Amino acid sequence: MTTYGWVSFTTDYGTADGFVAACKGVIATISPATRVIDVTHEVPARDVRRGAAVLAQAAPWLPPAVHLAVVDPGVGTDRRGVALRTPRGVLVGPDNGLLVPAAEALGGIEGAYVLTEPGFQLPEVSRTFHGRDVFAPAAAHLCRGVDPARLGPPVAANDLRRLPDPRVEVGDGSLRAEVLTVDAFGNVQLAATAADLAAAGLVPGAAVTVSRSGPTGAADAADFGERAWSASVGATFADAAAGELLVLVDSAGHVAVAVNGANAAAALGVRDGDELLMCARFPDLTPAY
Amino acid sequence: MTTYGWVSFTTDYGTADGFVAACKGVIATISPATRVIDVTHEVPARDVRRGAAVLAQAAPWLPPAVHLAVVDPGVGTDRRGVALRTPRGVLVGPDNGLLVPAAEALGGIEGAYVLTEPGFQLPEVSRTFHGRDVFAPAAAHLCRGVDPARLGPPVAANDLRRLPDPRVEVGDGSLRAEVLTVDAFGNVQLAATAADLAAAGLVPGAAVTVSRSGPTGAADAADFGERAWSASVGATFADAAAGELLVLVDSAGHVAVAVNGANAAAALGVRDGDELLMCARFPDLTPAY
Amino acid sequence: MTTYGWVSFTTDYGTADGFVAACKGVIATISPATRVIDVTHEVPARDVRRGAAVLAQAAPWLPPAVHLAVVDPGVGTDRRGVALRTPRGVLVGPDNGLLVPAAEALGGIEGAYVLTEPGFQLPEVSRTFHGRDVFAPAAAHLCRGVDPARLGPPVAANDLRRLPDPRVEVGDGSLRAEVLTVDAFGNVQLAATAADLAAAGLVPGAAVTVSRSGPTGAADAADFGERAWSASVGATFADAAAGELLVLVDSAGHVAVAVNGANAAAALGVRDGDELLMCARFPDLTPAY
Repeated sequence: MTTYGWVSFTTDYGTADGFVAACKGVIATISPATRVIDVTHEVPARDVRRGAAVLAQAAPWLPPAVHLAVVDPGVGTDRRGVALRTPRGVLVGPDNGLLVPAAEALGGIEGAYVLTEPGFQLPEVSRTFHGRDVFAPAAAHLCRGVDPARLGPPVAANDLRRLPDPRVEVGDGSLRAEVLTVDAFGNVQLAATAADLAAAGLVPGAAVTVSRSGPTGAADAADFGERAWSASVGATFADAAAGELLVLVDSAGHVAVAVNGANAAAALGVRDGDELLMCARFPDLTPAY
Repeated sequence: MTTYGWVSFTTDYGTADGFVAACKGVIATISPATRVIDVTHEVPARDVRRGAAVLAQAAPWLPPAVHLAVVDPGVGTDRRGVALRTPRGVLVGPDNGLLVPAAEALGGIEGAYVLTEPGFQLPEVSRTFHGRDVFAPAAAHLCRGVDPARLGPPVAANDLRRLPDPRVEVGDGSLRAEVLTVDAFGNVQLAATAADLAAAGLVPGAAVTVSRSGPTGAADAADFGERAWSASVGATFADAAAGELLVLVDSAGHVAVAVNGANAAAALGVRDGDELLMCARFPDLTPAY
Repeated sequence: MTTYGWVSFTTDYGTADGFVAACKGVIATISPATRVIDVTHEVPARDVRRGAAVLAQAAPWLPPAVHLAVVDPGVGTDRRGVALRTPRGVLVGPDNGLLVPAAEALGGIEGAYVLTEPGFQLPEVSRTFHGRDVFAPAAAHLCRGVDPARLGPPVAANDLRRLPDPRVEVGDGSLRAEVLTVDAFGNVQLAATAADLAAAGLVPGAAVTVSRSGPTGAADAADFGERAWSASVGATFADAAAGELLVLVDSAGHVAVAVNGANAAAALGVRDGDELLMCARFPDLTPAY
């Protein structure tokens, strides 16, 4: 029997209402010894993609845990609730793509189960708050050692809903990638990874041009042309002069664009869903005459 | 002797300053085994009514606990601090109406006591921070098993300050009610309950017109006329088409107005203190000629 | 061997990303019994001065603890990480002035050590997230009883980086001081203390004029002239009439300017870094004819 001492908790509930506390109260009632680590409750309302990214980047740093995540625009419909078993914990939440990236970050899905068993839900289940009535009870029972397979019938891993892969294109001397998140400092994290940056030949010290395209989708690099900034590839913020733009590999292994001492997202006008294009910049050898 | 393992904590302190941490430090010092569940610290400054609503809706989902709540515009005046004993826990905070709705949600007031006993306060009590100096220590001592009656002299339950009842008017085919809260999703919760909705004859599937009146107070339905929206009565968000307005009973048993996939409060321009009027809508049989 | 049951945690990470959770996960993995009290994660990005003030005012109310604080614009440069031992706990974070005021509030620095020992860091240390990779592990090991001196070589207390002292000038009937913080209620806390207020002869009941100067720095009182408000010295908010300005000693022992029932910072247009000048106001004896 595997028990868990920790629940991680990720939602779009905000912290101004009592929703988070209600869920924690349910967990405390069912499994008093469980301790909760809040990942965030500030996922923008119904933004499954953002919730998935934050959870996937935080979960690997936690001890083995039940990861409870609820960003659930389909609550009350026939969307399924699921528990995903991984080598380093169990994920619980709606089957809408929210959990899969974290499951992969935790070693992959070893088993998936649909949350149908009423004995592991609250006696009365509302139509609008499954976080409290379905998911939190499931998480608490899992902490106490209930086998995920007891929560309901199995579902094949490749039958789970998944989010579309974010766009990443590696060229020779160029890298184009979708913005994954913008953090509290304004650092712009891209879907591209350290390996993509290396494959594009953008090595530390390289001079690059960064340009931005809105979510309407530019067909090719030409559309990026009007908004371009000079940057260099570095390893930490101070590798650029104060106020200068920098491309680096962030602490989650993703390519990020930052400004030393300031807010890169504001400087570039970047928002979630935008794409950035980074191109190697070569000395301008055009004669001046 | 009744001990409590949990303190719930509700304030208007915000989380940018160290006020919440100072209170938690006092609790940890007096009663190290106590664990704290934050309800919210984002009650708008001095908004006792909002604090009372959030606490009353969260408290029933917690294990037996000491509920510490501080929204306290009268700190430092002669307003009393009180502890209210209920069948499912003790509430601690200022006697300004903040605690009473939660006490009722927890089974009613079995005993009320004024917090006068210095032995259960910090040695030095400031004039501006009773959360830290009076209420947190009282909560911590209650967790350790101190009988509420030892905190100070009893006060009759009907001698406690109470908030005015929010306005709810049930008609034949109509329901008018004050807005209680707007949540992070923009769902507009009314003071009316499921029973009020049923009494008004507004059953699932019914078509209704929703209109809004500002806090200046409209004397009758006519004042609601200029801002009216079509909606239907449903059970969950997806019972309306995407972007459509919906009246439902929310997870706290209150009537709420929502938009499937969007922010109803923004769509209707609703704020706390407004009133909404819902009227059954009948097919328009007026001939078109 | 000194062990600690508590970590206090102060950052500018915000709570929308998973940074705080990653650090808590590292602590939970290394030292599962440790409990965390969040001071705040809403220090404005890179605002070391504000982080230092919040931590110094919260720390004295906590039980003996490891105080983990990360506001770290120099992460990835040669700025040092340090642990400061005090009579009431150990502080861990960057050597940029953030920790020193709290160390003084906890009884003074008894020993300071540079965090160089890799055995108390994560196996791989990123260039941009020392909170997770260096400081959280150090805090967790300290909780388990590791002596601070084992974390790395000692450094003399007077060799630590310190923030400049905020400006405070005591006159005869006047007090001029830098704004330290503005809290969630809009109360304006000054660097001056109760002793400064007394030394200036501004006693409870005194009528004063409050004026404001921006951070560009006014050379003398004349520059404060155009923006002046009447106030009185009191002990709690209600010592002024509703909406009236009040000077008082706040719950941290600092001089503060407040408005009874409203937001003083908004009324005065005050921001962090401004200075306020308070002058005793005497009856106007000029004949009216």
